[in-house]
Amino acid sequence: MSLTTLENDATVTPTVTTGPITGSHKVYHRTESGLRVPARRIDLSTGDHFDVYDTSGPYTDPDVTIDVHSGLHRLRAGWADGREHNTQLGWAKAGVITREMEFIAARERVSPEFVRDEVARGRAVIPVNRRHPESEPMIIGKNFLVKINANMGNSAVWSSVEEEVDKMVWATRWGADTIMDLSTGKRIHETREWILRNSPVPVGTVPIYQALEKVDGEPEKLSWEVYRDTVIEQCEQGVDYMTVHAGVLLRYVPLTARRVTGIVSRGGSIMAAWCLAHHRESFLYTHFAELCEILKQYDVTFSLGDGLRPGSIADANDRAQFAELETLGELTHIAREHDVQVMIEGPGHVPMHKIKENVELEEQLTGEAPFYTLGPLATDIAPGYDHITSAIGAAQIGWYGTAMLCYVTPKEHLGLPNRDDVKTGVITYKIAAHAADLAKGHPYAQEWDDELSKARFEFRWNDQFNLALDPDTARSFHDETLPAEPAKTAHFCSMCGPKFCSMRITHDVRRYAEEHGLSTVEAIEAGMQEKSAEFGAKGGQVYLPVVERP
Amino acid sequence: MSLTTLENDATVTPTVTTGPITGSHKVYHRTESGLRVPARRIDLSTGDHFDVYDTSGPYTDPDVTIDVHSGLHRLRAGWADGREHNTQLGWAKAGVITREMEFIAARERVSPEFVRDEVARGRAVIPVNRRHPESEPMIIGKNFLVKINANMGNSAVWSSVEEEVDKMVWATRWGADTIMDLSTGKRIHETREWILRNSPVPVGTVPIYQALEKVDGEPEKLSWEVYRDTVIEQCEQGVDYMTVHAGVLLRYVPLTARRVTGIVSRGGSIMAAWCLAHHRESFLYTHFAELCEILKQYDVTFSLGDGLRPGSIADANDRAQFAELETLGELTHIAREHDVQVMIEGPGHVPMHKIKENVELEEQLTGEAPFYTLGPLATDIAPGYDHITSAIGAAQIGWYGTAMLCYVTPKEHLGLPNRDDVKTGVITYKIAAHAADLAKGHPYAQEWDDELSKARFEFRWNDQFNLALDPDTARSFHDETLPAEPAKTAHFCSMCGPKFCSMRITHDVRRYAEEHGLSTVEAIEAGMQEKSAEFGAKGGQVYLPVVERP
Repeated sequence: MSLTTLENDATVTPTVTTGPITGSHKVYHRTESGLRVPARRIDLSTGDHFDVYDTSGPYTDPDVTIDVHSGLHRLRAGWADGREHNTQLGWAKAGVITREMEFIAARERVSPEFVRDEVARGRAVIPVNRRHPESEPMIIGKNFLVKINANMGNSAVWSSVEEEVDKMVWATRWGADTIMDLSTGKRIHETREWILRNSPVPVGTVPIYQALEKVDGEPEKLSWEVYRDTVIEQCEQGVDYMTVHAGVLLRYVPLTARRVTGIVSRGGSIMAAWCLAHHRESFLYTHFAELCEILKQYDVTFSLGDGLRPGSIADANDRAQFAELETLGELTHIAREHDVQVMIEGPGHVPMHKIKENVELEEQLTGEAPFYTLGPLATDIAPGYDHITSAIGAAQIGWYGTAMLCYVTPKEHLGLPNRDDVKTGVITYKIAAHAADLAKGHPYAQEWDDELSKARFEFRWNDQFNLALDPDTARSFHDETLPAEPAKTAHFCSMCGPKFCSMRITHDVRRYAEEHGLSTVEAIEAGMQEKSAEFGAKGGQVYLPVVERP
Repeated sequence: MSLTTLENDATVTPTVTTGPITGSHKVYHRTESGLRVPARRIDLSTGDHFDVYDTSGPYTDPDVTIDVHSGLHRLRAGWADGREHNTQLGWAKAGVITREMEFIAARERVSPEFVRDEVARGRAVIPVNRRHPESEPMIIGKNFLVKINANMGNSAVWSSVEEEVDKMVWATRWGADTIMDLSTGKRIHETREWILRNSPVPVGTVPIYQALEKVDGEPEKLSWEVYRDTVIEQCEQGVDYMTVHAGVLLRYVPLTARRVTGIVSRGGSIMAAWCLAHHRESFLYTHFAELCEILKQYDVTFSLGDGLRPGSIADANDRAQFAELETLGELTHIAREHDVQVMIEGPGHVPMHKIKENVELEEQLTGEAPFYTLGPLATDIAPGYDHITSAIGAAQIGWYGTAMLCYVTPKEHLGLPNRDDVKTGVITYKIAAHAADLAKGHPYAQEWDDELSKARFEFRWNDQFNLALDPDTARSFHDETLPAEPAKTAHFCSMCGPKFCSMRITHDVRRYAEEHGLSTVEAIEAGMQEKSAEFGAKGGQVYLPVVERP
């Protein structure tokens, strides 16, 4: 399908959200060679500003005209000229710093050489299919900011192309670093085309889903030929990374029979069914080298799928799961020999005390290939709240070294996420990813927390809202209790009310110190007597109503 | 204030939620000596049932008539006869197993002797003021189920007595193990009376809040006498545990001046202001032994407050925080000499990698007194989602040994929680507490997860909903995608639709094994050839529409 077809497709008319997020605007930083790297600038009432990583693409830039029928501007058109026949990994190994690496270095605030070195080691991947020039380069690796993925895709049950395109724009607006199109049923190719041509972030897929449609949903009818052609079709379209369940070996399938929840991965169960039906190893495993050669032509990244991941706390870290991981390790080394980038998918459902083992084993078996996990959920007993049960596990596994976290929405296990669920899932996972960055001691992570906490402490309410991951929700929650606009500048919060505010005491302690131009600690120690008298005299100035305060 | 006054109080007419939670009903287990211990029984479509810990009190028992004007039945009336002048800790040290211990043993499924021993060691507390006979005995300690607390209380800004009583019943309905009444402003005593007479769980307070009201909100006017009289008033009313910020020493106050967010604890800042105003150690510290003697008379438990807890990621684990913790350790040992039970309050805002140190230090300094923490929030950047940022920290600190988690609602830092926020906060914290129980390897924790996962895997949709922490939300989310009642028995979920379902493949693998009466693994290994043929012949029966399945 070409853009022309898109323009003529009268049946599809997506409407997407544009314009900046409240309290911020798009800025571009120039790299040495002149690349424009986007950031989201939050303006503060102090006259200062704070820039944050920006995944939203041109949609939040008012100077850009958005036309979903013609697709986004082809940012990277021509970047690959002269290096068509090599991958980011290939160039990294050869010591070459690509434009993508330069762009990413500016985004992550590290040196281009550091980016190149991490890619060369296979410890980070840059998913950029040359056929998807609309996407802004980003990197996935344990030594960079933790990334999050949001799943899209219509299913046999419902949801339209329009909805999915809108959800994609909506998810990247709030912080999704990549999106996966998991469409099944009809119009898979068309839905994917709409998403790819309009996505500012890398797009992942699970090709076996479309291949299954081509054989009327009967796994045993799948063949290497059908699968290969589907992969080539998707590579040509511009898919940036593909989930391949090549680790589901025939001998591993029986290991799932005694599980509480057997095989819960869709791709894993398809391959398990194929293996049982043919009593052979899957074509994904036997043709893996050919698959590498295809992906290499487009620089598509492998996301080796965990088809035997646990679907419940009871099945976590069992033989089936770790046996498959071992095979994924072997395949990782084969892919690297072909200069194809690889990341590894992980669970799923894992109690907190069993999470660390997953990361340690993955790093050991794959030589630190980027780990990409779904949650994991830290308990099974809260359907309807699995964005939370999984954020608990996701924050921890991110801290231990997982490079990308696949979001989970409140509808997990129950239904398909709507627009609100997508936003809730993305914000929840931005929280988990940022908490992990903090715990890993990322040099820039805490700056954001400190900016917000300072604003909170100084009663700069609007700054606090605008620095929040979700300014609109923060502001609306505040307004429920104290709707009046003056409250936005009030020197108290709703918990204690105007007469008393705990934070004000520290303000007064500090102001006192400043007035006396001493280091605050000395000031207080030296000045306590005076302070004591002052308190007595003024009858506790800190409790005067706000209006009477300077 | 007496119950009579309550009955005559025409100005207050709380309406509370009664009746069982969807899909479950109240049952009582009899102890050896005939005590009736409540549990919530979830009935399953298999004819089986699953009992869970029940904090909801008589409100979920249809056989009990609720009259908030006369208060709940006095369950423990007479239990203390003959032991008025000793505490649970005193009796535990003397080797005596009280009725409260027997009740708790049945609730926690451990031996009464184990309960007694944990209390005697000071590693667990049983907050039961003899003047609050309406409450059902419960225990807080690292070797029992992790508990959660929900804060109530009207403030100077808004909210009525009616709202607070309704919120109390609502919070315990969804799982709050204790509640704290943090009322400020007018009608503090009256609000507390309503809550105490109608609360089936222990009630905690921060007496300094009411004392401050008595001196017109001016901290420096506070005195030991005013505070003492307030404590006695609250002991007489039946408060079960009290937060006392006795660890805020004069020399610690300056340590907060260089913080990003200074002093954020309300009680802590009140005492800091008092210390600065009088340039002396606080009356809480200098009169601590007298305070012990008062609490002992009623068997009220200390909750030693962390007045200098960090209010931001930047201030976590700093000198001010840990200096105060050291003093709380000293006070803990003094209280125990007086046979008064003690727990210790903890932060607050702490990045993941600094959480463990808090638990280790607390256990070392206090001799393993139960730790009771607020969150902690693992990042500051998500106001509006702080139930989630804090659940990440709460689950971890619970795993490390914290005995009770104080909930945080979505309104934290922004406003006062409404009824929906209270439920969201409680469910979120039940998730964190249960995830911690799982990670600690609590003998019974995983049974619940397994029951729900089995139901999910066997497509017993209603069982899955009813086993969820929030059955109503789980059911409604499912119905958004597949509203039809038949879908509740459908052998597929909304993600894959009727034509294909990953879980069904494992079902078929397993059924095959069962039909052949072999151990499943052997069956599959032995029968693969046959299975292969079968699959071919039936054209993949697992993909036939649901209606055609047996």
